[in-house]
Amino acid sequence: MSHSPDADIALARRLADAAGAAIRPFFRAAFTMETKADASPVTQADRAAEAAIRTILEAERPGDGIVGEEYGTVREGAERVWVLDPIDGTRSFIAGRPIFGTLIALLEGGRPVLGVIDQPIARERWLGATGRPTMLNGAPARTRACATLAAAHLATTGPTLFSPDEAATFDRVRARARDTLWGGDCYNYALLASGHLDLVVEAGLQLYDLAALVPVVEGAGGAMRDWRGNPLTADSDGRVVATGDVAMLNEVLGLLS
Amino acid sequence: MSHSPDADIALARRLADAAGAAIRPFFRAAFTMETKADASPVTQADRAAEAAIRTILEAERPGDGIVGEEYGTVREGAERVWVLDPIDGTRSFIAGRPIFGTLIALLEGGRPVLGVIDQPIARERWLGATGRPTMLNGAPARTRACATLAAAHLATTGPTLFSPDEAATFDRVRARARDTLWGGDCYNYALLASGHLDLVVEAGLQLYDLAALVPVVEGAGGAMRDWRGNPLTADSDGRVVATGDVAMLNEVLGLLS
Repeated sequence: MSHSPDADIALARRLADAAGAAIRPFFRAAFTMETKADASPVTQADRAAEAAIRTILEAERPGDGIVGEEYGTVREGAERVWVLDPIDGTRSFIAGRPIFGTLIALLEGGRPVLGVIDQPIARERWLGATGRPTMLNGAPARTRACATLAAAHLATTGPTLFSPDEAATFDRVRARARDTLWGGDCYNYALLASGHLDLVVEAGLQLYDLAALVPVVEGAGGAMRDWRGNPLTADSDGRVVATGDVAMLNEVLGLLS
Repeated sequence: MSHSPDADIALARRLADAAGAAIRPFFRAAFTMETKADASPVTQADRAAEAAIRTILEAERPGDGIVGEEYGTVREGAERVWVLDPIDGTRSFIAGRPIFGTLIALLEGGRPVLGVIDQPIARERWLGATGRPTMLNGAPARTRACATLAAAHLATTGPTLFSPDEAATFDRVRARARDTLWGGDCYNYALLASGHLDLVVEAGLQLYDLAALVPVVEGAGGAMRDWRGNPLTADSDGRVVATGDVAMLNEVLGLLS
């Protein structure tokens, strides 16, 4: 069954509403917490939020695929696949920082065509869709001009998320940037989309970490690629670069690849 | 002239109100920005906030000393000295993250006796004073129990804020902690005071970065020391450790010293 982009966007908003309602009661409150096989933490809030989203999707889009961080994959081969990270930045969530986000993406043929970055505590929602301007709470979000790395405010979530080789590559970029900000997860890409950061470089991302970011960044005027300069798809290797100004992309890719 | 603790606390609240009013118009808006001699950024908002605080102090406490990040030191030898960092976490402020803070401390005889960590966007204010429980927006803030490093959620602002020797020392702690969160500046200590983080380890802090943190952390039940285990004073070397649970302190100090 096909759906209009407007219907997909309206659905994505309701999915984010449901996730936010599931997450808010746990923020800075008691919740159960475990450590997953990859050493990353997961909480009751991550699971409640993803379950809330999946309940809606299963009822309203029974033919679409779903890839979720906490509850795995169904109908993997579907043309349309919803990709979910209920809490991107679980470490920030656990620590009570309001800079984590719920990530909801729709892939068509393996390419992200719709993305939501939702911060449910500050109630900020960035929504990007192919061919449309990215919106933050209903107002257009735009990246800012910054054509050179020397002028760029760079952000990345943490040094230990890179392999040693990746860390050395990242350091070449960092050494040439104007300034570096640590921490942040998906929120860095949202701030880049709104013109407050110029560059984000990361590695080790899963599909559910990156898919929603692409329409948000690109619809705001930025560029998002893998470290070789290829568009990000379901088959990407998890190394990503986002620039607010497309003019900076080649300089950064020259250092990354 | 002596002043009652209640009068000092009431004044500190008015100083934080004035700083917040000066900062809020610049958040995610246009502001001028420069890079200081130590490569750290400073904005129009930092300067406006410190000027607003100093105007009140000069009018109401003309005999007290002032140490401020942006406008330097006056009456250094005074028994009572106000120590100001108008925006701690300027990089976060510049990037539009609501996790920076205004730091206001009062030293008596070189020891911090009053401290405010104020987040003016989320309108969160932690206030600690010797002999009193730390308050967050009028409700008591308490650290949580976490007696061992293996169970600890650790936070630090960034890897490049350490010298190479300090980084190696920090890594010994990090390798034994349960988890590490990057970024955060003063906000990490506030979250520790409220029981959402267990441990913060940093180096390179100036007096204006650390003085306000001590009464907030200690009044919430935590411990704050230099890496040798000494109390923090105006003469400290900028290497600090904060634990929410005093029982964890010796284990961490054993790795730091």
